[in-house]
Amino acid sequence: MKVLVQKFGGTSVRDNQAEAIQHIEAALQTGNKVVVVVSAIGRHPDPYATDSLLGLIGVPGETHISKREKDLLLSCGEVISSVVFSNALNAKGIRSAALTGAQAGFITNEDFTAAKIKEMRVERIWKELETHDVVVVAGFQGMTEDGEITTIGRGGSDTSAAALGAALQAEYIDIFTDVEGIMTADPRVVEEARMLDVVTYTEICNLAYQGAKVVHPRAVEIAMQAKVPMRVRSTGSLSEGTLVTSSRDNFAGKDIPDRLITGIAHLAGISQIKIETDTDAYKTQSSVFKAMAEANISVDFINISPNGVVYTIAAEQVMLAQDILRELGLEPKVINNCAKVSLVGAGMTGIPGVTAKIVQTLTDKEIDILQSADSHTTIWVLIKEKDLVAAVNALHATFELSL
Amino acid sequence: MKVLVQKFGGTSVRDNQAEAIQHIEAALQTGNKVVVVVSAIGRHPDPYATDSLLGLIGVPGETHISKREKDLLLSCGEVISSVVFSNALNAKGIRSAALTGAQAGFITNEDFTAAKIKEMRVERIWKELETHDVVVVAGFQGMTEDGEITTIGRGGSDTSAAALGAALQAEYIDIFTDVEGIMTADPRVVEEARMLDVVTYTEICNLAYQGAKVVHPRAVEIAMQAKVPMRVRSTGSLSEGTLVTSSRDNFAGKDIPDRLITGIAHLAGISQIKIETDTDAYKTQSSVFKAMAEANISVDFINISPNGVVYTIAAEQVMLAQDILRELGLEPKVINNCAKVSLVGAGMTGIPGVTAKIVQTLTDKEIDILQSADSHTTIWVLIKEKDLVAAVNALHATFELSL
Repeated sequence: MKVLVQKFGGTSVRDNQAEAIQHIEAALQTGNKVVVVVSAIGRHPDPYATDSLLGLIGVPGETHISKREKDLLLSCGEVISSVVFSNALNAKGIRSAALTGAQAGFITNEDFTAAKIKEMRVERIWKELETHDVVVVAGFQGMTEDGEITTIGRGGSDTSAAALGAALQAEYIDIFTDVEGIMTADPRVVEEARMLDVVTYTEICNLAYQGAKVVHPRAVEIAMQAKVPMRVRSTGSLSEGTLVTSSRDNFAGKDIPDRLITGIAHLAGISQIKIETDTDAYKTQSSVFKAMAEANISVDFINISPNGVVYTIAAEQVMLAQDILRELGLEPKVINNCAKVSLVGAGMTGIPGVTAKIVQTLTDKEIDILQSADSHTTIWVLIKEKDLVAAVNALHATFELSL
Repeated sequence: MKVLVQKFGGTSVRDNQAEAIQHIEAALQTGNKVVVVVSAIGRHPDPYATDSLLGLIGVPGETHISKREKDLLLSCGEVISSVVFSNALNAKGIRSAALTGAQAGFITNEDFTAAKIKEMRVERIWKELETHDVVVVAGFQGMTEDGEITTIGRGGSDTSAAALGAALQAEYIDIFTDVEGIMTADPRVVEEARMLDVVTYTEICNLAYQGAKVVHPRAVEIAMQAKVPMRVRSTGSLSEGTLVTSSRDNFAGKDIPDRLITGIAHLAGISQIKIETDTDAYKTQSSVFKAMAEANISVDFINISPNGVVYTIAAEQVMLAQDILRELGLEPKVINNCAKVSLVGAGMTGIPGVTAKIVQTLTDKEIDILQSADSHTTIWVLIKEKDLVAAVNALHATFELSL
């Protein structure tokens, strides 16, 4: 039995139902059975959206229930969604059954509101597929061994879809979104941005982490480990979207230019903090990062040197960070309104001169590079927010991403 | 550990929350722990009401899902309700936990949408009560041995409350309603109708079946079998309402006059069907009731005689019934606009002359008795709807129910 997993967001369950069903019908016509994963219906103020259910127990931070009970409440959103969608499929003559996350076999740990999937027990899905063409599974949820309902943390329904795709060894895991696929850059910033036909798991992870919020990295990691190809597709289009697979050699016959850079992501709203110290550099460093961690401030772009430390944080937390650092007797220098640009490409590994090309492109435009960092497949630069549009467009042109 | 079970309807969960919580606080102050059973929030068009959830899968009769999935959808209504109510209790400083029906131990058969409770496994409730003052249980639902979510049929959340009261051997099962308690007659018909302090299980069952829709008879039966006293109370009043218990000797010290009749219920909208036959009476009788059953028409007030049969049905089904009977070659005589009056009283058992008193009262008022029937604790008469107000008031006066 060939199975395809297709994940649809909340707006597809009711408002764009017909479009979602078209995709399912297309998959069935190619001889697959389909396991559909759905999120909660709609968006707030839709009463069945996750945020609306949360609203029933008061404003955030002022609820008076345990995480266990919060999960019980939220899980209803996806259960309602799965039954409504299954009903719509049956109405179209597609034999469908709805299952809760627990019934679909998601066994998690007891870390309520952020539970981790421990095991997938998918026998029930196989059984339902004997008599149904489609099984609709409530995403974002599972059950502990003791029968407690949990919601899963990182990646929500994307992660549910990937875990099912892996457990069922699906032909594809299709993540339907409101965009056509993965773009070479944000089309709101770069007019010439183009959809990518194929990216590697690693590339999409770096693109996603850096602000291209299309599919959750956790879902990609699961698909990668299980070697199940993923497709990022648009509910409103019959295009196959962007294929996510393991390596350039595995691109399903597609003719892909062997480019250095696959895509550029960016994230604004960042502040850089610099602390210089003449003495006790080691002690300063450890006390700074310990204090940040205790205040639950995420740090990024860390450069440590004998003269002190430099790092970035989200703009919202800069006041808090400054207060903490001053309490430690330090004098932080802050540059607000920074942006991080990520150049991602599996093809850059082992190719010299990529960084040089980036530096050349930015200095030609008189754009200051405040910091930089790199891994095998990604180079990051920190620049000022005012330079962001110019920088991303120039880099997009340099690496010929619109071709 | 002393436990009280308190059942609240959907409007108490959100709109009349404060009043419901007052009752729970009062119960806690008398040294009880409280197990609360809740229905789904509000009434249609509230989005979390049962009818609203049903509306998500189309108009009745046009849904395309299995009963299993319908139960999955509907169960969310009470789960949401239980978490919302538990949150409200905790906000008031009352330590509360919410449980689904499954978690609270309702094990049912697989008769989806009308499941029967097979077993109660209440260990989890006792465990939660060690660290909480209140456990809020989602009513109207359970789980099969295989982990399928079911909704229970007859009596819904009333039955859930009674089953919990029985399994926990509760001090009381409190059914909160929007009326003060059980009345001697419908106060919209009899101005002098009075609330009853005490009724027996049998009496309330007969009163409820006959149209005094306050507590479901199935719930009363369960309470009776477990010998747990029940109270029918008003959410909006601190009165103890009507106590429902097993016998007059057991009225918790209350001084109850030993009356013949406890209350009078009535039901309008009834049609009487009479079929006279000269020959083949036996064959006619059996074919009539077989045809009614096949058409799913409930029959009541059956009088069989060698000359034919007389029975009543609900007015809505009279057209259908007539068609069926004519197809059988019979000539039904129909009297529309009838009403059934039920005089209920455990005290009438073995006391002669009660029927005589009823007949005298009605003939004094020139009210025709179209049919009558009786059991140990109830006497029924069928009259014309136009005589209903006069009849019930006259009988109420004859048996001195307002005293």
